[in-house]
Amino acid sequence: MKKHSLILAVLWICSISFCYSQSSTTEIKEDFKPSSKNQPGKEYPQVNSQGYARFRVEAPKAQSVNVSLGLGGQGGTDLTKDADGVWTGTTAGPMDEGFHYYHLTIDGGVFNDPGAKNYYGSTRWESGIEIPAHDQEFYALKDVPHGNVQQILFPSPSTNTSRRAFVYTPPGYSQESEKRYPVLYLQHGWGEDETAWSNQGHANLIMDNLIAEGKVEPFLIVMTYGMTNEIKFGGLRDFKIEPFQTVLVDELIPYVDANFRTLSDRDHRAMGGLSMGGMETHRITLNKPEVFSRYALLSGGIYTPEELNDSLKPDLIFISAGSKENPDRVKNAVSALQDAGYQAVSFVSEGTAHEFQTWRRSLYELAPMLFQTK
Amino acid sequence: MKKHSLILAVLWICSISFCYSQSSTTEIKEDFKPSSKNQPGKEYPQVNSQGYARFRVEAPKAQSVNVSLGLGGQGGTDLTKDADGVWTGTTAGPMDEGFHYYHLTIDGGVFNDPGAKNYYGSTRWESGIEIPAHDQEFYALKDVPHGNVQQILFPSPSTNTSRRAFVYTPPGYSQESEKRYPVLYLQHGWGEDETAWSNQGHANLIMDNLIAEGKVEPFLIVMTYGMTNEIKFGGLRDFKIEPFQTVLVDELIPYVDANFRTLSDRDHRAMGGLSMGGMETHRITLNKPEVFSRYALLSGGIYTPEELNDSLKPDLIFISAGSKENPDRVKNAVSALQDAGYQAVSFVSEGTAHEFQTWRRSLYELAPMLFQTK
Repeated sequence: MKKHSLILAVLWICSISFCYSQSSTTEIKEDFKPSSKNQPGKEYPQVNSQGYARFRVEAPKAQSVNVSLGLGGQGGTDLTKDADGVWTGTTAGPMDEGFHYYHLTIDGGVFNDPGAKNYYGSTRWESGIEIPAHDQEFYALKDVPHGNVQQILFPSPSTNTSRRAFVYTPPGYSQESEKRYPVLYLQHGWGEDETAWSNQGHANLIMDNLIAEGKVEPFLIVMTYGMTNEIKFGGLRDFKIEPFQTVLVDELIPYVDANFRTLSDRDHRAMGGLSMGGMETHRITLNKPEVFSRYALLSGGIYTPEELNDSLKPDLIFISAGSKENPDRVKNAVSALQDAGYQAVSFVSEGTAHEFQTWRRSLYELAPMLFQTK
Repeated sequence: MKKHSLILAVLWICSISFCYSQSSTTEIKEDFKPSSKNQPGKEYPQVNSQGYARFRVEAPKAQSVNVSLGLGGQGGTDLTKDADGVWTGTTAGPMDEGFHYYHLTIDGGVFNDPGAKNYYGSTRWESGIEIPAHDQEFYALKDVPHGNVQQILFPSPSTNTSRRAFVYTPPGYSQESEKRYPVLYLQHGWGEDETAWSNQGHANLIMDNLIAEGKVEPFLIVMTYGMTNEIKFGGLRDFKIEPFQTVLVDELIPYVDANFRTLSDRDHRAMGGLSMGGMETHRITLNKPEVFSRYALLSGGIYTPEELNDSLKPDLIFISAGSKENPDRVKNAVSALQDAGYQAVSFVSEGTAHEFQTWRRSLYELAPMLFQTK
């Protein structure tokens, strides 16, 4: 019995130490390359073909360096210092495909990785890293005609300032000077801002590629900041929709309709959003069914048939989530909507969680059908 | 004699220690406010009405925290740790008005201040801070009609990619659908990129405000990345102008003329740049006098009458610098150009050095006259 235990112990040790790297399924491939979200010329962070991430931080006199990114529940990745005072480390396992926010904790303080570009998330400019995805071609920068992303500053009497939004105009917008376009108002999530859908989401490249393939009729996308109190980012429990609804419906939409060649009726106006932006979409479309005809919730809740307006029915309801979120809730909600006679579509992003890869894929699925239904 | 010396010594000690704070001219006023370049909701860094900057960084276990910003030649500002593990410190004196790049050195590693927004300079995304200037109204966000800043991705066969540029279109551009506009091609400095003139320079707000006051006839501004090797940022000694000249003249200009309502002749096309962008402007306008009719060097060298093309004379040469740079060289160069019969204008920004306040003011001076001369 003791001998048996010893053999088991050896096998167990073997499986987690030197024998580990002999296994073809768990060996870390040394094909690491700089992340596509790195600052120009920066070699680290790196990612390999399996989805592992490797970090390298110079801080020779630091006591500890931790990367917030790692496998769930493991407290991120602790880096170790080499003889030159350089801290390095690799995630304990492969990361999900797509974009991730992260930061460093150095001697108890939170800082960004000087190798990575920054993206607004968690109410701060965080470091970003990109794990190459098997389907990354749909949001890649390709040699196709490109639309523009326009920064606009629109007057907002209700908040007593000029507010910023970005407007995606498709290729051909400037040449076809008589053509008018439908509009999708597309919201970011909590802690993000109006830069997220372009910078993290590549919404413009997703549209450019779909248009080049002839898969979508061009439309405009308008992205603005979904909170009206820029200083306090309190709990969502205290969030009131009315101030933002005023900005969106009474200020931004009239400005966009006056300054861009839009089809400015309900039939050609959609609202969608991810996470908190889905919550906002849900509330505002129910409050203002006369303004929008197409609704999209991306990891942002569901609609029930009971809460929808009977006389101003939406022409499309799109509800999505990652497979690591709550896909059954999404599918069940869409079934119930279909049973009640609504044009509803569900989408589940395989192998992704509450992150931007889910939302990139959701936009890619949504765009071709968005203004096709009636 | 000894008694006299003692009195002098006491007076001297008095003047640099406790008596120092009694002096009304050198007392640090406790009216510090968050920098306008802070991330949303961040209290630090702060600036006071005299131009002092104060920093606050949490890193309880760090050995040393230094801010690169400080008075010249003093190695920045060392922060000191309080009982709570928070590092604080104030610059030894007032800073120049306007925008400054900076970073932190924590235990020997270079990081950004988590309180500040980041700006691309020194070939990295650096922290930025804004010292309120007496003339800051000319680049303030005001309740006036605003133009747009459009991100374009234009095809560049010579570099085998799609390259990014930003195009400022003035208020009214979308409504006045028949009107055509002159164009200024405006370059950033070394270590910066195509985001600099909007983010640090507020070129769009300077134009919006000038147009609202009726001081300038609207024109477009096109800003693109002035280097063609994105990885290696070597010495400027090895810089070759031809690859960027090809991108600008053979690829970007035709794209802009095809996609925006420009006046596409030489008379209505200008080139300008700051620092390295001035060097590029100098080289490209001399190489291609048939393409541009107006030249602007902002802290970026001079023209001599001898090097200019006799048959394709520029309609305007604008040369500027900060008073802390080389104002006499700028003035003398412009005098020589005027003596030789050229339409040349100099501008010196009072009290500023090789920084963005000099270039904001230069654009403000340049814009009203840029397309008025012939």
